[in-house]
Amino acid sequence: MKPVDRKRLYDVVIVGAGTAGLAAAMYAARYLFKTAVVSKDYGGLGLWAHKVDNYLGLPGITGPELMTKFKDHAEEMGSEFLMGEVHHTEKEETPDHGHLFVLHMKDGSHIHGRTLILAQGTRRRKLNVPGEDQFSGKGVSFCSTCDGPFFKGKTVAIVGGGDAAGTGAILLAQYCPKVYLIARADSKDKLRMEPITERELENEKKIELILGNQITEITGDLTVKRAKLSHPYKGKNELSLDGVFVEIGGIPNSELAQTIGVELDERGHIKVGDWMTTNIPGVFAAGDVTEAMNNFDQFLTAAAEGSLAATGAYKFLKGLPVPSWSNEHEHVEPVKTLNR
Amino acid sequence: MKPVDRKRLYDVVIVGAGTAGLAAAMYAARYLFKTAVVSKDYGGLGLWAHKVDNYLGLPGITGPELMTKFKDHAEEMGSEFLMGEVHHTEKEETPDHGHLFVLHMKDGSHIHGRTLILAQGTRRRKLNVPGEDQFSGKGVSFCSTCDGPFFKGKTVAIVGGGDAAGTGAILLAQYCPKVYLIARADSKDKLRMEPITERELENEKKIELILGNQITEITGDLTVKRAKLSHPYKGKNELSLDGVFVEIGGIPNSELAQTIGVELDERGHIKVGDWMTTNIPGVFAAGDVTEAMNNFDQFLTAAAEGSLAATGAYKFLKGLPVPSWSNEHEHVEPVKTLNR
Repeated sequence: MKPVDRKRLYDVVIVGAGTAGLAAAMYAARYLFKTAVVSKDYGGLGLWAHKVDNYLGLPGITGPELMTKFKDHAEEMGSEFLMGEVHHTEKEETPDHGHLFVLHMKDGSHIHGRTLILAQGTRRRKLNVPGEDQFSGKGVSFCSTCDGPFFKGKTVAIVGGGDAAGTGAILLAQYCPKVYLIARADSKDKLRMEPITERELENEKKIELILGNQITEITGDLTVKRAKLSHPYKGKNELSLDGVFVEIGGIPNSELAQTIGVELDERGHIKVGDWMTTNIPGVFAAGDVTEAMNNFDQFLTAAAEGSLAATGAYKFLKGLPVPSWSNEHEHVEPVKTLNR
Repeated sequence: MKPVDRKRLYDVVIVGAGTAGLAAAMYAARYLFKTAVVSKDYGGLGLWAHKVDNYLGLPGITGPELMTKFKDHAEEMGSEFLMGEVHHTEKEETPDHGHLFVLHMKDGSHIHGRTLILAQGTRRRKLNVPGEDQFSGKGVSFCSTCDGPFFKGKTVAIVGGGDAAGTGAILLAQYCPKVYLIARADSKDKLRMEPITERELENEKKIELILGNQITEITGDLTVKRAKLSHPYKGKNELSLDGVFVEIGGIPNSELAQTIGVELDERGHIKVGDWMTTNIPGVFAAGDVTEAMNNFDQFLTAAAEGSLAATGAYKFLKGLPVPSWSNEHEHVEPVKTLNR
């Protein structure tokens, strides 16, 4: 057991600094808890958004601007940011501080928390085809909004049948004279896009839909030159390209949750109850990493989940009842919190 | 049956223009639905907030400023605002448009919608004591943030044991040399306030707590002069006062929901399922009027509920499955929407 460094002991430790984590930090700090946000960087997937039109009150803002507002708010309310990567976490019984959660950081340091809020979001799904890793950053990108501007005047493909692929294609058409949108769905009806995206796709002549097809290999020299297709398109088995954008969804970052025994659903999302409780008392979760709100992953839902998780932690630390745990968890004593 | 005026026929009709209603309007308009917000005015209870510090990204904004941003956003995305009061609503089977919901307005006009989102929030609870109605607006107020500035230099009481009463007292102390905070709770431990509020209350010498007591009558001449107490305080049965602020919580505005048979919980909140469905297919609800999110009524949770309800309406209109209705509601055909 590592000795508890009081300077690195917190009432609420939040892992992840996307929308959900920052909302949780803002709320926990307003509850006057000593609150830390632990993350490699801040912003999460929101940082990758070119233009955000669906965070109520701030239409037309860029992702980086919005995430900076979120971070500034969380800091202004008094939460601390500890930059770093967590290796694993475990529960400890300490002589001086009772039950604690310890984060073992990759740099060998430790952070202790009385409660834990897991808000690590999702990461982009890969194609898993030859050439994808080799040309990553050399023509293969997982973020059209981040990398689109680098492909001005080039021919690119974007892979995916969801809204991220559709809006990505529309954005890429601002830079590129030719954008192939490649989807496994064999008809337009089977694309999973918002109507507004479908309409815009139809109006954009630079975009060519290749349906019922997949990229099987990405080739080139120093950078991407071609992509092989699973089915011939216009009589050819490959496309000449300068870039391939992969926009096929996300995988929950729930590996850390697993190291401490947090229950996941079949798709790897953290299972949550009222107040964003997990199966482990004292551990909460929020945002895209969870199954909450029908997996409707939006800025507004992530932020609401963060506010609920922080309030769950508040109830836990004050010994108030938390409905999800009503059976197994009746006799929690209020914890002496550190406050600020 | 009233003839359907196509100009007043909408894909999504939202009743209420607080945070939840405006978020629903913004989302429904982004789905390209012909969307109307029906309300007497806009802003809801959010309009009454002196200072809002817990809407992520916009710390320190005033309630009116925030609600104006919300309204502007909903309008910018293309939703229409129809000012007016609804008398009652019913379901109709129309020859040309199938199932519709009709709003019978108090001015005799009608608004038809394919779906309905109920987002009417809550209204303030009253003390129900003699003098309360008589002196309403003449010293009795239900909104310390709205009316506090009118009581500069005066002696006032604020009634309530929750956070609204606590923060209201702190605000009133900015204007008034003497503020009594009167609560039924007979000890500080039983007040239901955020710790930050409790701490600020303790630091504010102008505030005097009167616990285990209630106002039984409000008296005066043209304006409030005195309040009678249920228990003697410092040897007296009444307090000399210039104003009484009542901050004892809200009652859900679910009367309209009842006229159409929407199910309520025992406290009058609308019962909701996934995607904010009610028991009536095509009718959704969002915000403080519902039981959702553990009745944690915040800007962020209301906004998230609005986004979920609009997305529920989207699924309903497109004939997509909505889990809450999976048993009774399997064969919904996509509706021909009006769009914009």
